Amino acid sequence: MNKTMYAYGAEKSAIREISAFAAARKAQIGADKVFDFSIGNPSVPAPDAVRRSIERALELPPCELHGYTPAAGLPAARQVVAASLNRRFGTAYTADNLYLTVGAAASLSISIHALTNPGDEVIVIAPYFPEYRVWIETAGCACVEVTADQERFQIDAAAVCAAVTPRTRAIIVNSPNNPTGAVYARANLEALAQVLGEKSVEQGQPIYLICDEPYREITYGAEVPWVPGIYGNTVVCYSYSKSLSLPGERIGWVLVPDTMPDADRVMCAMAGAGRTLGFVCAPALFQRVLMDCVDEPSDVEAYARNREALTAGLARAGYTYVEPDGAFYLWVKALEPDAEAFFERARSFELLPVPSTSFGAAGWVRVSYCVPYDTIVNSLPAWEALAASYR
Amino acid sequence: MNKTMYAYGAEKSAIREISAFAAARKAQIGADKVFDFSIGNPSVPAPDAVRRSIERALELPPCELHGYTPAAGLPAARQVVAASLNRRFGTAYTADNLYLTVGAAASLSISIHALTNPGDEVIVIAPYFPEYRVWIETAGCACVEVTADQERFQIDAAAVCAAVTPRTRAIIVNSPNNPTGAVYARANLEALAQVLGEKSVEQGQPIYLICDEPYREITYGAEVPWVPGIYGNTVVCYSYSKSLSLPGERIGWVLVPDTMPDADRVMCAMAGAGRTLGFVCAPALFQRVLMDCVDEPSDVEAYARNREALTAGLARAGYTYVEPDGAFYLWVKALEPDAEAFFERARSFELLPVPSTSFGAAGWVRVSYCVPYDTIVNSLPAWEALAASYR
Repeated sequence: MNKTMYAYGAEKSAIREISAFAAARKAQIGADKVFDFSIGNPSVPAPDAVRRSIERALELPPCELHGYTPAAGLPAARQVVAASLNRRFGTAYTADNLYLTVGAAASLSISIHALTNPGDEVIVIAPYFPEYRVWIETAGCACVEVTADQERFQIDAAAVCAAVTPRTRAIIVNSPNNPTGAVYARANLEALAQVLGEKSVEQGQPIYLICDEPYREITYGAEVPWVPGIYGNTVVCYSYSKSLSLPGERIGWVLVPDTMPDADRVMCAMAGAGRTLGFVCAPALFQRVLMDCVDEPSDVEAYARNREALTAGLARAGYTYVEPDGAFYLWVKALEPDAEAFFERARSFELLPVPSTSFGAAGWVRVSYCVPYDTIVNSLPAWEALAASYR
Repeated sequence: MNKTMYAYGAEKSAIREISAFAAARKAQIGADKVFDFSIGNPSVPAPDAVRRSIERALELPPCELHGYTPAAGLPAARQVVAASLNRRFGTAYTADNLYLTVGAAASLSISIHALTNPGDEVIVIAPYFPEYRVWIETAGCACVEVTADQERFQIDAAAVCAAVTPRTRAIIVNSPNNPTGAVYARANLEALAQVLGEKSVEQGQPIYLICDEPYREITYGAEVPWVPGIYGNTVVCYSYSKSLSLPGERIGWVLVPDTMPDADRVMCAMAGAGRTLGFVCAPALFQRVLMDCVDEPSDVEAYARNREALTAGLARAGYTYVEPDGAFYLWVKALEPDAEAFFERARSFELLPVPSTSFGAAGWVRVSYCVPYDTIVNSLPAWEALAASYR
């Protein structure tokens, strides 16, 4: 047996562990008495257009509907995605720039395997989604953490510059950010691009930017700049898990833009990575759903309302948090230095956020507010009581 | 960029290349004039129960239907699969013995990563499905080919015994077999089990049997023995691609039976492998389809009719082939020693089988007969003309 795989299986995701505890606790004391802020499972239902699209697809001959698609996905589905990006970002992508995947996890795993070699280093901006480290290490690379600025949690370009070594091959940039809710400003991304560009020239080989954007559509007014327009050596990883509320269906894509030198060869390496990891094609039925729903608006209103209620309530109770510009996560300062201890105290009030240690940071918790509105409102007395217990 | 991934992407699958050529050729000279026997895309439509199951699932609240499931799959879906296996094989599996996957490729990739360590050797029985080598090498292992007996293409247990080294960690057994159509007889599997058992004791560590069974339901009278009942250290990899004609939807499972010492730890390693490779969960909608359709009979009649017409026609034209007991592939002896040269000659008659070189063997071609019946009937004059050209 492989001990590394065993360890990754045994360690489990802290997020999923807390979520499982919440389910058990709800069964014990009642669902309305437990406030589960752990997992990023969208609380907004998939738009009705998804159901209609599935019903329409069922009219196709079954062999056509459920058969293998090309490894990169149905050309028509890729063309629809390309056209949507072109309308929104003034680009000129075609189906050939896109590789449909089994969701964002696959997009990232494939991209990391395609762009790096064992022994390379991949930079992440801490705090960061914990699975980044797992996928980076599985590709035989080292995960190098660079701390975000502690004011607005933007990228600290100078710190990135200091962390680059001759073995740095890629950086993962996640905006809107999980877990902080930060959206990286254009000027911030330009500063990063300048550093990466200079270091690439210095080293005589490109440092790739892997842009992880599942929350692109979930914002509260901030601009989410199109990163390939700022830095040419960017691949974009996307998923419809959050924008169309389809996390269980596993459908997303990788974009390799023509701004990337050697784009054809990089796309070929993506296909090789998809093949070798055991992805044959993205689920065929949901490739057809994309064709119908790619421009379906996300129901951001519900999340905006949750965000409003949660931030107002926590502010009244005296908490410090990062004002979220996007995604559905609030990054809240723990009321003691030890995030795990704070989490345990919160749990005694039936509040279940995720301690920041899971995200490579000390002293904070992540509060997922993709929950029913009532959960937020009903949790506020518990948040108040938790704060009072520290006074 | 990763040169290994690039190479795997550039090499492409010979099967998919021929299939793509067939599509282009059909566009050129007419679909009825090209006989595409390359790919194993089922020609039998998914049963109507699949459509009804999807329609029923669409009545669920979308967040429940499309949300993340546990990494191993919905407990209820796993329980249904376990109960079906128990009814058929007299076993006592539970949901905990099953890990739902994104199809058989994922089942195999996950199993190989979970059961082996880099530097290990994995035995395959040649001829074999070419992706086995890709997944084995991606896990850092060596792919060791052991030739099947050349009469009935059963496993040559003595040859397996001779090929085992202290680094042998697993063997992949595929029955009904792609590409030969052979079904391994109980006595044959017992002989293999004896070898593996003795060698495991000799080495003081288990040699795992990875049983790849996507064609289990597609047989023409032969018994397909339940391998964990014959050899305890067996994991079973399954997919509904062929039995329910859902190859594009990517849904299958790995079974880790309790007959396997350390079953809990092996299942944990499976979960670790699924996590690290980037599989989050099997597509949620199709997990629900399983719950309804797990015992839906496969439409073997159509394949049986094709098999009859093809074997009768090729026998009349003087070809030698392996009488297929299962799957929908016919293993036909090339009419010259060089399979690639024979393939090129066949292509000049608009016949498109796959040369055996793709499967690690010389001198044969694989003819996929999961095609419309008319394709087979209409191709027979071309097969006859091809044979005549060698007389």
